[in-house]
Amino acid sequence: MITISIENNSQQPIYIQIYEYIKREILSGQLQAPAKLPSTRSLAAHLEVSRTTVETAYEQLVAEGYVEAKEKRGYFVIPITHLQQFHSNTTSTVTVPAPPIPEQARLFDFNPDMIDTEHFPYSIWKSLSKTQINSADNFVAGEHFGDYRLRQAIARYLRGSRGVQCSPEYVVVGAGLDHLLQMLCLVFERRTPVAMEDPGYPSARQVLLANGYDVIDIPLHNYSFDTQALARSDADICYVTPSHQFPLGFVMPVSRRQELLRWADEKAGRYIIEDDHDSEFRYKGRPIPSLHSLDTKNKVIYIGTFSKAVSPAIRTSYMVLPETLFSQYKNLCGGFSCPVPRFIQSLLTDFIDGGYFEKHLNRMRKIYKGKHDFMLQKIKEYFPEERAEISGDHAGLYIIFHYKGALSEQEIAIRAKKAGILLHPLRNYYASLPVDYKPAYLLGFANLNTDMIAQGIRRLSEQVFV
Amino acid sequence: MITISIENNSQQPIYIQIYEYIKREILSGQLQAPAKLPSTRSLAAHLEVSRTTVETAYEQLVAEGYVEAKEKRGYFVIPITHLQQFHSNTTSTVTVPAPPIPEQARLFDFNPDMIDTEHFPYSIWKSLSKTQINSADNFVAGEHFGDYRLRQAIARYLRGSRGVQCSPEYVVVGAGLDHLLQMLCLVFERRTPVAMEDPGYPSARQVLLANGYDVIDIPLHNYSFDTQALARSDADICYVTPSHQFPLGFVMPVSRRQELLRWADEKAGRYIIEDDHDSEFRYKGRPIPSLHSLDTKNKVIYIGTFSKAVSPAIRTSYMVLPETLFSQYKNLCGGFSCPVPRFIQSLLTDFIDGGYFEKHLNRMRKIYKGKHDFMLQKIKEYFPEERAEISGDHAGLYIIFHYKGALSEQEIAIRAKKAGILLHPLRNYYASLPVDYKPAYLLGFANLNTDMIAQGIRRLSEQVFV
Repeated sequence: MITISIENNSQQPIYIQIYEYIKREILSGQLQAPAKLPSTRSLAAHLEVSRTTVETAYEQLVAEGYVEAKEKRGYFVIPITHLQQFHSNTTSTVTVPAPPIPEQARLFDFNPDMIDTEHFPYSIWKSLSKTQINSADNFVAGEHFGDYRLRQAIARYLRGSRGVQCSPEYVVVGAGLDHLLQMLCLVFERRTPVAMEDPGYPSARQVLLANGYDVIDIPLHNYSFDTQALARSDADICYVTPSHQFPLGFVMPVSRRQELLRWADEKAGRYIIEDDHDSEFRYKGRPIPSLHSLDTKNKVIYIGTFSKAVSPAIRTSYMVLPETLFSQYKNLCGGFSCPVPRFIQSLLTDFIDGGYFEKHLNRMRKIYKGKHDFMLQKIKEYFPEERAEISGDHAGLYIIFHYKGALSEQEIAIRAKKAGILLHPLRNYYASLPVDYKPAYLLGFANLNTDMIAQGIRRLSEQVFV
Repeated sequence: MITISIENNSQQPIYIQIYEYIKREILSGQLQAPAKLPSTRSLAAHLEVSRTTVETAYEQLVAEGYVEAKEKRGYFVIPITHLQQFHSNTTSTVTVPAPPIPEQARLFDFNPDMIDTEHFPYSIWKSLSKTQINSADNFVAGEHFGDYRLRQAIARYLRGSRGVQCSPEYVVVGAGLDHLLQMLCLVFERRTPVAMEDPGYPSARQVLLANGYDVIDIPLHNYSFDTQALARSDADICYVTPSHQFPLGFVMPVSRRQELLRWADEKAGRYIIEDDHDSEFRYKGRPIPSLHSLDTKNKVIYIGTFSKAVSPAIRTSYMVLPETLFSQYKNLCGGFSCPVPRFIQSLLTDFIDGGYFEKHLNRMRKIYKGKHDFMLQKIKEYFPEERAEISGDHAGLYIIFHYKGALSEQEIAIRAKKAGILLHPLRNYYASLPVDYKPAYLLGFANLNTDMIAQGIRRLSEQVFV
């Protein structure tokens, strides 16, 4: 039995205290694989806390890959070798469902790339813009890697919420993943192929190919990144989405992360590009610490974006370069101008520094969780288990709907069109489709209100996935 | 003698009627090289107009390369072969000197890249921004090549003021020359070297090199682009600044433009990149028509920018792709997002469509001409002819100051530093310095008011170029 001194008056929720304790035990080697954790029932009784509290703690450990849940047998510690120290100081997320928003629904686009534009704090944005729109400073060319004030704000945010320890010096502001990846393409050795997950982000693939790189697709069999396949390949650069795999939606477990870091460490010039595209939105447990926070060898290039948290139309993203790569980058690309207009940079900085960004994130997390939960509930309501399965839930702005019925994808496409529904097949994100591929669809919920979700899922059930 | 039916009641100024008449005569072959034009005195008497009017017309013909002025001998038609039809409908510019702006001067930076930020119509910009900053549309991802409304506004502006005939479909909005050139680098055959002018724009050079292209530097001996050297090279892409060579400031004559177009036409896949970086600002005669306006074979990629006309910090530029290249570009780069935030795109569109952009340009042209003329006057005042010479005047936001005294560049640098003056040596823009290079400096005036210009030039005369 594990004895944890629970502090009831602590600022930390009890489930986090339990989670932190067990994680420390695993990291320090006190708890080793294949140790079995006490059952949730017995630990709850032992600590005199509710069983849900223990379950929440265990689920976070599972999500981060420290522990695995075996059906009907319990929770087991996963073997972890060559462990490095976490230095995450992430904050917990509060989850309250959002009130349903009534609105007339017409065409349903379950677009996974859309965001909610209804709940943006326009009045704050407008009032902040009033001082910046008039400032002559915003009409003078700025720093090439982005304005220092913005880079400071980003570094602070990353330290606080993503466990990314970095100096503002190494933050480079760019115009979206496309742009930053294209800049990185100038720095890497062009003869080196780049590995990426399959399925993965089609734009990233297109940028790499357009820049003359060979792309090695690493298949994600059983929702697991094949580091062996990576090691066998010629790739020295690897592009991954560890905190929320795009598009499959799973979390790369800590053991796999360690393998990836070890792979990078085996050879000079090897780098991992971590695309942390939507880590702001996690609806269960604590945020997953970044891969960057595990990296002690300067091997991870961290890329983040304001596309999901503010707007894709603001075209502002950033990367944190390892010191080793930074001087190379500076030599090659130091003369290029930062593509983000200074007005936008200044406005965004004021938005972050004024605390509005954090407030907005917390609010949107609740709203998105409300929509997410509602969509799951509706799917459960309209689809019997034998007709559909869900994956990639509890994070991001879409879920994956796996169709288990008899219709072919062509038949589904025809029916969806007739029903006025835009579907986004998982198939489109694959470079090579696995032989056992089954029809699956990304269902975005961010841009839909509950009425639309309810109607949309009903239409899916009655007219499409029959 | 040339007989032109001058229409005194025409909307067209008389000098333009004379210029247009002679240009037509040359283009139609009625006037052929080495024909001598009537003297300004005799034509003025013949047409009963002022001599200045005829001189202005002749100077425009000289600026565009139809005619050359030989000292004490008069004006002669230049041989032009394989002429293609102009379709310019450019408007004339009114030139009134701006009132001097009093301000305390401290450190003088004669930065050629700076603009005047004092006379921007901030109140209009702010009032236009009020409707756009709140619009949910500006929070949704836009079109990949830029918002169609903006591309329409750009196409209209280019047709009206630069003689660039294009459909909005072929306009691609980007984030500055760096970015657009980098996108073009993805489309060209990477093994092909790219030719560019030497001296030239260092950022363009850096982008090409960073993208793995060999750069062939075409020397500009005697202020003339060496098309023979281009033809001898392996280059299939040529990057030029024909309307106002950067940094030397001269206009590529029409015969040279024709040679360049013929070179491109000789081989499939050959393209000319025309960087029309600051053509909005010309203080003498009419604007120089773009190279694009001469191109009938779909060989010119026209690049323009709002950096000089609005602000470099707005990071908005555009290119017009030839139809032949457009489909290639679409295939390769069609999936990349436009890097300009939608708010900026919408604001800029309203600024153009509302007529404010044109008004601003006309106002700034007057203000810049005032500063330009004032700087020339001050240089004349403080520097005897044997100590300094000016070139690259009558256009853009800087002039080139050629020092003819005995000091070395090192001595000048030390003196300038001591005098609190930032100088921008022409040397920095060369890839290979010509053997007969003499110390010369770009003197930007855009960001200085007349007081600062007067003080700065005096300091240059008394403390630096002694």
